[in-house]
Amino acid sequence: MTVSPLARPFPDMAPIAGVRLGTATAGYKAWARADVTLVELAPGTAVAGVLTRSRCPSPEVDLCRQRLPGGRARGLVINAGNSNAFTGLTGREAAEAQSAAAAALLGCGSGEVFAASTGVIGVPLPREKAVAGVTAAHAALGSASFHDATVAIGTTDTFAKGAVTTAMIGEVKITLSGIIKGSGMIAPDMATMLGFVFTDAAVSPDFLQAALAAANARTFSCITVDGDTSTSDTILAFATGAAGNSELTGWSSPGADAFAAALADLCRQLAQLVVRDGEGASKFIAITVTGAEDDRAAHRIAMSIANSPLVKTAIAGGDANWGRVVMAVGKAGEAADRDRLSIRFGTTEVAAGGAVVPGYDEAPVTAHLAGEDVDILVDIGPGDGRATVWTCDLTHGYISINADYRS
Amino acid sequence: MTVSPLARPFPDMAPIAGVRLGTATAGYKAWARADVTLVELAPGTAVAGVLTRSRCPSPEVDLCRQRLPGGRARGLVINAGNSNAFTGLTGREAAEAQSAAAAALLGCGSGEVFAASTGVIGVPLPREKAVAGVTAAHAALGSASFHDATVAIGTTDTFAKGAVTTAMIGEVKITLSGIIKGSGMIAPDMATMLGFVFTDAAVSPDFLQAALAAANARTFSCITVDGDTSTSDTILAFATGAAGNSELTGWSSPGADAFAAALADLCRQLAQLVVRDGEGASKFIAITVTGAEDDRAAHRIAMSIANSPLVKTAIAGGDANWGRVVMAVGKAGEAADRDRLSIRFGTTEVAAGGAVVPGYDEAPVTAHLAGEDVDILVDIGPGDGRATVWTCDLTHGYISINADYRS
Repeated sequence: MTVSPLARPFPDMAPIAGVRLGTATAGYKAWARADVTLVELAPGTAVAGVLTRSRCPSPEVDLCRQRLPGGRARGLVINAGNSNAFTGLTGREAAEAQSAAAAALLGCGSGEVFAASTGVIGVPLPREKAVAGVTAAHAALGSASFHDATVAIGTTDTFAKGAVTTAMIGEVKITLSGIIKGSGMIAPDMATMLGFVFTDAAVSPDFLQAALAAANARTFSCITVDGDTSTSDTILAFATGAAGNSELTGWSSPGADAFAAALADLCRQLAQLVVRDGEGASKFIAITVTGAEDDRAAHRIAMSIANSPLVKTAIAGGDANWGRVVMAVGKAGEAADRDRLSIRFGTTEVAAGGAVVPGYDEAPVTAHLAGEDVDILVDIGPGDGRATVWTCDLTHGYISINADYRS
Repeated sequence: MTVSPLARPFPDMAPIAGVRLGTATAGYKAWARADVTLVELAPGTAVAGVLTRSRCPSPEVDLCRQRLPGGRARGLVINAGNSNAFTGLTGREAAEAQSAAAAALLGCGSGEVFAASTGVIGVPLPREKAVAGVTAAHAALGSASFHDATVAIGTTDTFAKGAVTTAMIGEVKITLSGIIKGSGMIAPDMATMLGFVFTDAAVSPDFLQAALAAANARTFSCITVDGDTSTSDTILAFATGAAGNSELTGWSSPGADAFAAALADLCRQLAQLVVRDGEGASKFIAITVTGAEDDRAAHRIAMSIANSPLVKTAIAGGDANWGRVVMAVGKAGEAADRDRLSIRFGTTEVAAGGAVVPGYDEAPVTAHLAGEDVDILVDIGPGDGRATVWTCDLTHGYISINADYRS
């Protein structure tokens, strides 16, 4: 697997107090790499999550959905190489058996264990391997770094993706560290990936959920690689409270805004890293839509541009084909005044008032498209709605990866 | 340009009484081929049409939308190589000047001239070339066959696409002949193409519109190549009345059902030909969804499968990756009972009751996928809703064509 040309180095990520990691090889495929990860969380850790809107979710997603209202987590199990999705009763029982085994090892109730699996759909998680794997990962607790865990949860990822940030809550410094996997089947309605955020901040489950939902709306829900939404999308956030700040319980708690901003910043970094590992990606594309009726309309138009195969292939070819942007605006189904539309690539205005700008010089646009980062700005009309989304181009690499994934 | 491996031969298409064709070279690009087509229609010809739902339509689409309520057509002008979309006032004036020139040549009002243009977006139709071209096409009226016209309206098409059918209205035999262009930017909300149907039947404009709308819903609106919707999609139907049947004025007119069935059959043939010329296509894929809540839900789920890059690349690779079908069902947003879902490839049941069938043997599925025609059948649950849509696979060919279209 060639590393994405848009890759970023894994950051220095110190351990988070109250979080211990272990990885092991369950052997879900014929490989020697670690493919099961167990995370032990200190008693009292708050948990929040956003999950795929797929109508055909995996049993692990069902399990998280059932357990999130409890608000507390002691363990997290992640399997790579088998998504366990669409595997009927057999898969459901395997997921439950694995989390029950983790609960017994950690000395907690099953309702405090969360789970996520990623890989091929339709093959039941092999129950014995899953239980043996999580047992081995438990024996290894404390020996794995965040980087080790990120590698162990990856599938078609070409580089390990993590991010870290800090914030001050009163006089207390808190840290947020996140890891994420995903490179294809990446689309809206939250993103399509497994991502895990750990913080030593003390946060109530309800406020953690509110802050995560707010961050998600502006980050994971604003990325797309191929418009395909996974059956297994999961973002979970865990707050151990070990930093000792006074607990954040709502938006009016002192420091709540700083925490939410740090969480959103972390989520944006993680979301953008997934786009940077988009299957076959050679360009990182930021699309901003302004002047729409409202933010929702702007988001829908931006996603229509980001998901257009014709826009994405044009950018792959370094072709300043802004006509395809007009096409994608038109098909979004939102109000757009053709005769007020303006489009910029980078800092160059290409079209305004419903037509190409007089004396348009393609040279600076072509130069902009030759770079790694491409910015497209579209002003739709006189409204206040705005949105930014991120995607990558569509290249031969995407076809090569996905026309032969299972073999 | 390599001819699509899914191509079909152009049928024998005799002239339609009341329809005369002429083509000429306007020179919209640096080429010697015919790129402007004029169709002369006998006085009293009824016209109906369905047009793109794009919010950024071309001036030709605007012009058709304004003129269709008049119900009568004497002329049709088609330009290839320049879509004239998003060209502001200059483009609008060029389209109006060209149709005014056609009206003067044909001795009719501008309101009886229809127009369509296809090609690159954002370059105003060159007015002088457009007027000179249509004048030359007028001088050539009667010299062009349907095949000639089909070639003259094509752009990235790799083969000429036409269809013909007949029906009996009482004792009178009527003929319907259709030509179509399109191979990319092909997506729902009617399809994305220019298509023209000519019949010698006598049909009132209102009933022609009703029959065309009904046919469209089951044919052009059921195909997709890349999910992208053009600014210029146009299907127009013209009925000259030269066959001499008693005029069809509504669904209760004797012969109305036979006419509507023949029209739908013709439209289905034309729509499927566009898919067969899908950019880079190597497989023709029919997707049928049954058991949905209603037909609308079934159509939405079928389109979600048909537009999924992951499904389309798997089929390109001959990979029986039915898990991606589950993913696409899940992301459609319609009610789907994961635990009742069943999937067939060809005649082989792959999954049922929410899991792979016991003893599933992939061999017959792989053999089915090795053929040119792929059938995917998905039963969602106990509902009555059903839909069939057609698409093609997503291959390296699509990327090659679209990453370098303008150059």
